[in-house]
Amino acid sequence: MNAPTPTQLLSPTLPRAVPQALLDALAARFGAQCSTALAVREQHGRDEGSLVAPPPEAVVFAQSTQDVQDAVRLAGEYAVPVIPYGAGSSLEGHLLAVQGGISLDVSRMDQVLSIDADDLTVTVQPGITRKALNEAIKDTGLFFPIDPGADASLGGMAATRASGTNAVRYGTMRENVLALEVVTASGEVIRTGTRAKKSAAGYDLTRLIVGSEGTLGVITEVTVRLYPLPEAVSAAVCSFPSIEAAVRTTIQTIQLGVPIARVELIDANSVRMVNQHSKLNLREEPMLLMEFHGSPASVQEQAETVQEIASEFGGNAFEWASTPEERTRLWAARHNAYFAAVQSRPGCRAISTDTCVPISRLADCLLDSVAEADASGIPYFLVGHVGDGNFHFGYLLDPNIPAERVAAEALNDKLVARALALGGTCTGEHGVGIHKMGFLVDEAGAGAVAMMRAIKQALDPQNILNPGKIFAL
Amino acid sequence: MNAPTPTQLLSPTLPRAVPQALLDALAARFGAQCSTALAVREQHGRDEGSLVAPPPEAVVFAQSTQDVQDAVRLAGEYAVPVIPYGAGSSLEGHLLAVQGGISLDVSRMDQVLSIDADDLTVTVQPGITRKALNEAIKDTGLFFPIDPGADASLGGMAATRASGTNAVRYGTMRENVLALEVVTASGEVIRTGTRAKKSAAGYDLTRLIVGSEGTLGVITEVTVRLYPLPEAVSAAVCSFPSIEAAVRTTIQTIQLGVPIARVELIDANSVRMVNQHSKLNLREEPMLLMEFHGSPASVQEQAETVQEIASEFGGNAFEWASTPEERTRLWAARHNAYFAAVQSRPGCRAISTDTCVPISRLADCLLDSVAEADASGIPYFLVGHVGDGNFHFGYLLDPNIPAERVAAEALNDKLVARALALGGTCTGEHGVGIHKMGFLVDEAGAGAVAMMRAIKQALDPQNILNPGKIFAL
Repeated sequence: MNAPTPTQLLSPTLPRAVPQALLDALAARFGAQCSTALAVREQHGRDEGSLVAPPPEAVVFAQSTQDVQDAVRLAGEYAVPVIPYGAGSSLEGHLLAVQGGISLDVSRMDQVLSIDADDLTVTVQPGITRKALNEAIKDTGLFFPIDPGADASLGGMAATRASGTNAVRYGTMRENVLALEVVTASGEVIRTGTRAKKSAAGYDLTRLIVGSEGTLGVITEVTVRLYPLPEAVSAAVCSFPSIEAAVRTTIQTIQLGVPIARVELIDANSVRMVNQHSKLNLREEPMLLMEFHGSPASVQEQAETVQEIASEFGGNAFEWASTPEERTRLWAARHNAYFAAVQSRPGCRAISTDTCVPISRLADCLLDSVAEADASGIPYFLVGHVGDGNFHFGYLLDPNIPAERVAAEALNDKLVARALALGGTCTGEHGVGIHKMGFLVDEAGAGAVAMMRAIKQALDPQNILNPGKIFAL
Repeated sequence: MNAPTPTQLLSPTLPRAVPQALLDALAARFGAQCSTALAVREQHGRDEGSLVAPPPEAVVFAQSTQDVQDAVRLAGEYAVPVIPYGAGSSLEGHLLAVQGGISLDVSRMDQVLSIDADDLTVTVQPGITRKALNEAIKDTGLFFPIDPGADASLGGMAATRASGTNAVRYGTMRENVLALEVVTASGEVIRTGTRAKKSAAGYDLTRLIVGSEGTLGVITEVTVRLYPLPEAVSAAVCSFPSIEAAVRTTIQTIQLGVPIARVELIDANSVRMVNQHSKLNLREEPMLLMEFHGSPASVQEQAETVQEIASEFGGNAFEWASTPEERTRLWAARHNAYFAAVQSRPGCRAISTDTCVPISRLADCLLDSVAEADASGIPYFLVGHVGDGNFHFGYLLDPNIPAERVAAEALNDKLVARALALGGTCTGEHGVGIHKMGFLVDEAGAGAVAMMRAIKQALDPQNILNPGKIFAL
């Protein structure tokens, strides 16, 4: 089953009227915290992905859990959709008002509520971004490792089960969210989980809400695990004669159990774009950007092991970045790859693939797809959290050439089919949103999707929480 | 809210008739795979816990997913409960036929279906035990770390979100189950998850089923993560002048981020019982039993760090067990603590507490409870996966003295209330079953439990899957 075509996405499939009475009630309750200005609505009606839809009818800026409760209850009275909004950095159309409704912006709920350094946990409001969180805890000797690239909000990261560059060592939001406060569809507040590291107390509501993309509840507090800042950190770049050599180095590193903290593939296209964008002189060959965390002895041991593996596959000698400044510069290059790529083709929109496969299948999945991408003639870049078997092709589309989008979606269809056949998933970290609904059915099967839908219907009988995402409903 | 009293548990709360027509249909479909013999039913009507109820009306021995489907469908036709049964080693009354019905024994579904050593995963049938699994993969250089003590089945471990001694380093079943095959209440087969290490593809049905105690589906396949056997393993025992000294050593070890693989507290009572049972000469003082995994350098580094911490708190010099034989003997002592304790008071039944708190609160939670246990006069032992903040008091009750049970439950009530006030959970790893339903409401709140119940009703509208567990329904 293929992804929906762009034209299907341009208008709401089931627009619901937002009665003036609701807008009046929101204005009365929220005053200046509620806006119906077109610019505000348009800014809240899109994300960083390439899909578009008419904007929501109003935006409520929540400043407290009580605000969230009241907004959800008012929307519920009129059976009008509510779309939670954090930093707006999602990629799969998660924030689009495809069934109309209001946007519920929690970005002003950005406080750190409790730093429990002795337990390696922190509890925050959902609007705080990951960079702001790390800034707030910088004196504790701890850090929050999950890094999806964008400076996403913690609530949004939980809602989409985000991961990114450090996940190979530290896990994803699935492993790192300990507890949530959630406003349900009826406007009730519940808590899922405790600060205990593990629990067998009933259904795992925390993990059910994590990755539910705003469809089961609005996250109003997040408790996450923190980690001691590693005693030693070293970053290295290694260039390879081919993507295959870089990928095989990664596979062997993981299979040997090296606890590498980051191992990012950057293809030659990306390096070229990053060099231009960030005024760098990186060698324009496929490369791995790696980071090692641990004691000085452990870091050295890990790096030596990986250097040996890389050499076997023709990799060059590691270039090291041992000072924080050098590391920051290198990682900025990685994080800017997306923007560097988009700027390399003025006016383009990027669509990003997100397959993830078992590590032994990574070469099988990736190399054939590179050949197909090269053959298509569409400009693209390739980056990946390859230690997890997850990678992203970014196709740079001219919106004036609809055939390019069709061709890029066809490439993605093939890639997803290949990943599923290899035991993988259509989405390692971006989520389903609107764009991957068809792929989800291919991957999980109709029975599992029916189970998801039954849960949604049980917990949100009016279908007001971010409707039209993950599955058709 | 307190745990139910024993008398509430002795008879089914809502017994449902098992019509002769169902028994006839099961006999016709399953032949010798179905038994109504009292001895077989009685063996399947209890677990390792102390609660009792009348046995199920029949036991079906499934040998395939199709068998499970057919048994569930037949039970569904008559709206009769189905209780999945693996190794029978649960502790909270999970297997008791409190609403009547049939037991569905999957222990004959014990095959390894696929060893994917290159991906560090294995897929098994639910009846295989953890020891049999590790035996089956011993030539791969990999191992499955989750060790709840009992030689539990993988299906049961998934169903109860088991953890145990290695969880401090390797996580629990929550972190280590990648995918499941599940037979739903309607007899349909679904698959949750893939072999990819991470995914953002829709609701996390894997984590929803893990820990659902057989109430949402019958697990028929389990895919779990494996780990490379560590290059070096060292086990050490350290005796301490007090429980507090052992606990504070543990807290500091975790807070420093030492990646210790196991750190088990064994109190002086337990050591005495184990010495008698296993003919050992361990020093009868509170002790920590530790294991370090990694490269030789890393293991040495970890051990030196922990020895330093222990010395600060008055711990003795580590006694090392570096050969596999010595390690096995030590860990057998730990694993036999339960049986050693039960044998120390002939005829007794043990009830085990299972609180888990954030690591900084471990001393606060544990030490006051030790004082209360000592004051009660009831024989007890104390063991714990203290690196996770999880510990178990085992109260050894004379079933002929009902007052002892009342007193032990009162001690547990106090302990749970204390753990919850400290941000912890009533159950780190044993699950809710029948015994902790009241505690679950205290911990999660009525709203969260109502959400669990709504999910249950949506996925099992006839309430046939292990009814009467986790919450009243």
